[in-house]
Amino acid sequence: MKLFNKKYHKPGTRPGTLKTNENAVFSVDLYDYNATVFNAQLNVDVSTCKSFIESENCTWIHVQGDPSAEAMKLLGKDLGIHELYVEDVINVGQRPKVEINDEQIFLILNLPVKEGSSARVDQVSLFLSKTTLISFSTGKNNPFLAVIERLENKIGKLRKQQSDYLLYALIDTVIDFGFPMLETYSEQIQALEDELMETKNERLLSSIHELRRDLLLIRRRLWPQREVINELLRADDNPLLQDNTLLHLRDCHDHVISIMEMLETYHEMTSGLMELYLTSVSLKLNDVMKFLTIFTTIFIPPTFLVGVYGMNFRSENSPTNMPELDWQFGYLMVWGIIALMIGGMLYFFRRKKWI
Amino acid sequence: MKLFNKKYHKPGTRPGTLKTNENAVFSVDLYDYNATVFNAQLNVDVSTCKSFIESENCTWIHVQGDPSAEAMKLLGKDLGIHELYVEDVINVGQRPKVEINDEQIFLILNLPVKEGSSARVDQVSLFLSKTTLISFSTGKNNPFLAVIERLENKIGKLRKQQSDYLLYALIDTVIDFGFPMLETYSEQIQALEDELMETKNERLLSSIHELRRDLLLIRRRLWPQREVINELLRADDNPLLQDNTLLHLRDCHDHVISIMEMLETYHEMTSGLMELYLTSVSLKLNDVMKFLTIFTTIFIPPTFLVGVYGMNFRSENSPTNMPELDWQFGYLMVWGIIALMIGGMLYFFRRKKWI
Amino acid sequence: MKLFNKKYHKPGTRPGTLKTNENAVFSVDLYDYNATVFNAQLNVDVSTCKSFIESENCTWIHVQGDPSAEAMKLLGKDLGIHELYVEDVINVGQRPKVEINDEQIFLILNLPVKEGSSARVDQVSLFLSKTTLISFSTGKNNPFLAVIERLENKIGKLRKQQSDYLLYALIDTVIDFGFPMLETYSEQIQALEDELMETKNERLLSSIHELRRDLLLIRRRLWPQREVINELLRADDNPLLQDNTLLHLRDCHDHVISIMEMLETYHEMTSGLMELYLTSVSLKLNDVMKFLTIFTTIFIPPTFLVGVYGMNFRSENSPTNMPELDWQFGYLMVWGIIALMIGGMLYFFRRKKWI
Amino acid sequence: MKLFNKKYHKPGTRPGTLKTNENAVFSVDLYDYNATVFNAQLNVDVSTCKSFIESENCTWIHVQGDPSAEAMKLLGKDLGIHELYVEDVINVGQRPKVEINDEQIFLILNLPVKEGSSARVDQVSLFLSKTTLISFSTGKNNPFLAVIERLENKIGKLRKQQSDYLLYALIDTVIDFGFPMLETYSEQIQALEDELMETKNERLLSSIHELRRDLLLIRRRLWPQREVINELLRADDNPLLQDNTLLHLRDCHDHVISIMEMLETYHEMTSGLMELYLTSVSLKLNDVMKFLTIFTTIFIPPTFLVGVYGMNFRSENSPTNMPELDWQFGYLMVWGIIALMIGGMLYFFRRKKWI
Amino acid sequence: MKLFNKKYHKPGTRPGTLKTNENAVFSVDLYDYNATVFNAQLNVDVSTCKSFIESENCTWIHVQGDPSAEAMKLLGKDLGIHELYVEDVINVGQRPKVEINDEQIFLILNLPVKEGSSARVDQVSLFLSKTTLISFSTGKNNPFLAVIERLENKIGKLRKQQSDYLLYALIDTVIDFGFPMLETYSEQIQALEDELMETKNERLLSSIHELRRDLLLIRRRLWPQREVINELLRADDNPLLQDNTLLHLRDCHDHVISIMEMLETYHEMTSGLMELYLTSVSLKLNDVMKFLTIFTTIFIPPTFLVGVYGMNFRSENSPTNMPELDWQFGYLMVWGIIALMIGGMLYFFRRKKWI
Repeated sequence: MKLFNKKYHKPGTRPGTLKTNENAVFSVDLYDYNATVFNAQLNVDVSTCKSFIESENCTWIHVQGDPSAEAMKLLGKDLGIHELYVEDVINVGQRPKVEINDEQIFLILNLPVKEGSSARVDQVSLFLSKTTLISFSTGKNNPFLAVIERLENKIGKLRKQQSDYLLYALIDTVIDFGFPMLETYSEQIQALEDELMETKNERLLSSIHELRRDLLLIRRRLWPQREVINELLRADDNPLLQDNTLLHLRDCHDHVISIMEMLETYHEMTSGLMELYLTSVSLKLNDVMKFLTIFTTIFIPPTFLVGVYGMNFRSENSPTNMPELDWQFGYLMVWGIIALMIGGMLYFFRRKKWI
Repeated sequence: MKLFNKKYHKPGTRPGTLKTNENAVFSVDLYDYNATVFNAQLNVDVSTCKSFIESENCTWIHVQGDPSAEAMKLLGKDLGIHELYVEDVINVGQRPKVEINDEQIFLILNLPVKEGSSARVDQVSLFLSKTTLISFSTGKNNPFLAVIERLENKIGKLRKQQSDYLLYALIDTVIDFGFPMLETYSEQIQALEDELMETKNERLLSSIHELRRDLLLIRRRLWPQREVINELLRADDNPLLQDNTLLHLRDCHDHVISIMEMLETYHEMTSGLMELYLTSVSLKLNDVMKFLTIFTTIFIPPTFLVGVYGMNFRSENSPTNMPELDWQFGYLMVWGIIALMIGGMLYFFRRKKWI
Repeated sequence: MKLFNKKYHKPGTRPGTLKTNENAVFSVDLYDYNATVFNAQLNVDVSTCKSFIESENCTWIHVQGDPSAEAMKLLGKDLGIHELYVEDVINVGQRPKVEINDEQIFLILNLPVKEGSSARVDQVSLFLSKTTLISFSTGKNNPFLAVIERLENKIGKLRKQQSDYLLYALIDTVIDFGFPMLETYSEQIQALEDELMETKNERLLSSIHELRRDLLLIRRRLWPQREVINELLRADDNPLLQDNTLLHLRDCHDHVISIMEMLETYHEMTSGLMELYLTSVSLKLNDVMKFLTIFTTIFIPPTFLVGVYGMNFRSENSPTNMPELDWQFGYLMVWGIIALMIGGMLYFFRRKKWI
Repeated sequence: MKLFNKKYHKPGTRPGTLKTNENAVFSVDLYDYNATVFNAQLNVDVSTCKSFIESENCTWIHVQGDPSAEAMKLLGKDLGIHELYVEDVINVGQRPKVEINDEQIFLILNLPVKEGSSARVDQVSLFLSKTTLISFSTGKNNPFLAVIERLENKIGKLRKQQSDYLLYALIDTVIDFGFPMLETYSEQIQALEDELMETKNERLLSSIHELRRDLLLIRRRLWPQREVINELLRADDNPLLQDNTLLHLRDCHDHVISIMEMLETYHEMTSGLMELYLTSVSLKLNDVMKFLTIFTTIFIPPTFLVGVYGMNFRSENSPTNMPELDWQFGYLMVWGIIALMIGGMLYFFRRKKWI
Repeated sequence: MKLFNKKYHKPGTRPGTLKTNENAVFSVDLYDYNATVFNAQLNVDVSTCKSFIESENCTWIHVQGDPSAEAMKLLGKDLGIHELYVEDVINVGQRPKVEINDEQIFLILNLPVKEGSSARVDQVSLFLSKTTLISFSTGKNNPFLAVIERLENKIGKLRKQQSDYLLYALIDTVIDFGFPMLETYSEQIQALEDELMETKNERLLSSIHELRRDLLLIRRRLWPQREVINELLRADDNPLLQDNTLLHLRDCHDHVISIMEMLETYHEMTSGLMELYLTSVSLKLNDVMKFLTIFTTIFIPPTFLVGVYGMNFRSENSPTNMPELDWQFGYLMVWGIIALMIGGMLYFFRRKKWI
């Protein structure tokens, strides 16, 4: 997850500025349908879209990838999209938002993608006018394949409804991508939790940190979507949105809130894991210290004792100079004292509950 | 407590999709009653319900377990339940919610279950129309046995009232299951608190962590119920809900808030326990360190001293080479010095308040 | 402070159920007064209350202790108290709440009691109708002695006003019990703060923990009282509440908020104390480690050196085998080297600012 | 900063009770002015105030110190101040609040005072009626000297405006005392931050703790002032408050919020300092441990080696008993091995990046 | 970032006081334009501005630096700016705010500046009347060069619109300066994160602390801008603000929120880094302790053993006095025991997973 993923112009630049994008790689797919007819044209040229837009049928234009400034300008002009919105589509990394008026609805959403241990969000921009829906999705793969299949195979009500129902279907898809992501995260957290009780190496620490960081960033990116759906629901007198669509959007709203709450919970949980880690490291240190203390303590007095009888005081000159060295059982006595010392200390530690 | 317990379809799937459930295990009980008549039919077939639903009497259909897609479709069609709600009943792990209109009320609640050290939530879905209440409860055991007994034995007003009062009775039951759960948690916290002062092993640490985790998850699952009851209370002009029922629901609302506040408090308290644990581990380490320091310190200088008189400098060649070894009371002097050293250090440590 | 102090019935039990209370110990005092007459009857029987309730004078019935189910039922019936409220009075541990309608006001408050190091809350339930006030207080001692004295001795406006002013006087008393409690807590915190700088034993740690725990629990119990007083203030068009009473209740409201803010502050402060404790334990450990390091370090090299000259290499066979042992000033040289070593290390530690 | 600074009566005491204050020390100053006349009477008797109050001129009575119950009663009666407000003036330690009606405005504010390392708040009570303003300020020194000077010297609009503008001037003064306090705190935090990087003794720890504690308490005391000014601003149709005054009060409101935000930030910052302290103590401990490890490790193996050659096995009896002791270069060899050992360990530590 | 950067007067000073500023360094630039004419006058005298202000064209006066009290008074009088606002421009360090009426809009914004590792905010004050915009910017460099270029070169709609669109352009510029700042911070956080896994010295610790501190302060300074833009948006019926400008301001609002959310996230992230640091220091300490324990433990028993055979008990007098010293393979046996000891301990540690 990148910390900063917003494209922006130098402060003071004219609003609506589109930088020429040298590396633009994108494909435009067009679906024109009503209850009876379904016409799919893949990889069309932007200029051919205009005639379909003006037809009575529902028209869905899906732009996948990183579109060029020229294509965006053309699409923007044909559909009357405000230049500020066109800029938002190009400058990815926008905050999710919705702009509603009686003729147009413009939405920006973030689609969470989790591949292995790396995560990112793709920006999905949706633009709805009377009979036309244009969707833009960054990233390599079209996330709406399941919707296209439903359109093609007449599954559900999609073909019978207006383009606002298609809008709902796309929003629903974008939001529901949160569930598989959350499932993956829950498995990662579970795995870390299990591992934590076993090993405590630094790799684990950075895994927890990375997880927490990702969840924090994902949460920030997805958080405003709640407000976006809310605002759509409040626009219940907008002529573009029909009652049936609003009913379904309410379901969507539940999902958004559910996902946000889980993200919140997971984030809190990884903070708990970090703390658990810290505490269990301290505990380990405590164990090691205890072992060292006991071990050292047991050997220090005997070592001192044998040092005493390694002194070279000469008994020849004085009867008080280490007479023990001449005693018959001196050596055995030393071993006896050592045994007593060790026994005493073991008893002391046992009483202190250190062993 | 599982981190992720939501059933969901692949993003982009048609709303209202019901997967065929191979492992469906469920039983349908039907209770048809008015002030004078009480008719209980256990383990009925879904198809026989329709005639009761259409009767004037209050009808309560309780579905326990994991119902099959076919049964749900049939029930849904007979009662005019929206396919989105039917999907919510099947895809357990939903966020508690309520959908109200003048003819129907649809509720999803979470029933907390605590068995020994493991906890979980069961989803309870309630659907109320004019004379019929359908309840769905996952889990193995019917949580509403006490209500059935009240119905059967004419305890209280249950038989005299409409089906909305039955709805209240079920909601009240689901929510009140929070109290025994909280009581168990309070005992666990109390036990951990007591144990913490005695032992500090890693098992305790993971107990605290697990408790905190459970409380976090439970809180997230139960939190939205507050909003659900609130919304029911606000629907005071709904023809399905009578004044008496609303009065009782207000009592329910107090319970919900009370439970949430306790969960909050308990969660905060387990965080405090974790911190207490960490601090007391540090304290222990400090004690151990102090002991090691004192013990080592007391033996290091004497050991050095006896090492000195273990040197082999030969006095034969030089009167300055270790004349002490020939002194009459040299050996006793060494012991004297050692005694002085140890005494001095003990005094120093006593002054430092280390012993 | 007990973590869980709520009495509750098994989930699914009929609302309004009153369990027969074997250990009921309670006394009923009755005060009947107007501006000129004051009639106090202590330890009356519940059945004698009815005639006073129906009189025109203000009647205050105070029930102290744990009333029996029968007494409660009788009182409830005489005064028309809803069975749900009767249940709340018996099942102590309720969340503070208020129920208002034009004929009755029902209040539950928590009275904080601090005796030595233990704290608890007593439930005070108040029921006001046109001319009658009934108060229930758990615990052993009547908390309203000062109010009774004011009534008896005609201090202030109590005798001249309606029973709603008496209600205010009782609420005010219950809330003001927070101030002596807070004063005691502030002294405890202050004492702990002072002690913390001196000693760091485990008893202190558990004192801080207990204090924090108590403050957390007390805060939760008292928190809703703010909302309760607020709701009373908003009921400014209720015929039972007169303008003068509302003015005084506003003063009460300030006290409630003031107490809550102090509790909040004290709780935060004890968290700070815990952290301070942890940090100062670490600091102590650091000191001890430093001492050990320095001490050990100073003796290790000399001990090694004297070990060297305790080796038994024989110079007889080889002039390179420990010729120092035969040097005239060998022994003194060793002491010189030891002095140099110790001096050098002391200088090094001084430069490192360790001593 | 004292934790608990509220004066209160025993719970149950009659509202409006004024205890006789034996230690009352106070002075009453009276300023009577209009655009042309300015009449200052210092240290007047309370009884002489009445005639001025009734005059048409603006009258400002300032009571500095701890007024006696009698003086308060007299003032209260002359001006028609409610006995609850009179009690609030005497029982200092009140929460800031405002009571507004069309004839009177009563305000309690807290004036933060920072003298050296100790801080406190003084209670300032303001009472405004049509032509009269009475201010009470605890503490020794009159905080309004600058306002008196402006009045005397006709600086600004003070003399031309009504007494509500004087009220604003006093409120503004009280609030602006927050800025020098914050400046002093910012310098203390800065100083602690700088010092932290150098030394880590326990005195620093208690300084940080005390600072955090003070900021917490000050914040609690000043927090409600925001609401007080807000309520004044909302009373824009009150006949006592003129438009010009409200415009200036809005400026005041900005200051209040600004001060609260800074206090918040400073409090968060001192929490950061505490954490920084803890972390850097751990770091230090780590350094010390590393040093100890390396030092000990370097001497332990050589000490063992010289111990080996201090053994007294007799080679006379056996050619395998310590033949090294008779080798020609045995002693030099030992020194060689020691040099190798130390070199090897130094290399190992260098590779581990410990030195 | 300075903790306290507010200029303020002594409490009690007259509102609107302007201190004579000895070190005033400022330049006044004037731009007078309409769709066809563009007239730029750099470094003009304040007194010459009046004629332009009164003209019909849009007039933009930009004051860069620290203006003198005299210049401010003159400008204030010519434009009818309230003396409180004039004071706010001079006393930099104000909280962002907006004052709106039908003839004037007065704005204070904070412009974040990040140069290398140091950050600060410059105060930008904007004053809009019908045809005139005056901007004040502290700091050395004019932040609006890009806007001037757009004006000069007729880029976008700036020349065709009223002065309120210019106001928007300046606000947009001020706010967008947040993006490069955030980008720099994100890089710093990333760099710290990478470095943390490698080294753990105290310099890193103070870097993290400084970063967190800066983010905290920046956040506080920028936070109110959100409210400022919000209030402008709510003033949609103000005659000074045209619909097109409001549409663009809404875009601005998104940016403000986006920046605030990122600051929040970054601040949380640096707190996470601090915790990570602390944990990884503990981990390191644990490693070091383990090494010390193992190393010491391995050498302590052999050292004791060789001490034993360094004792001087004389076998001459007693067969039990150290007969081992005379054994043929005594010395080899000692080495054997040592090898066994070391092997045993290594096995023990391996089993404990310490090596």
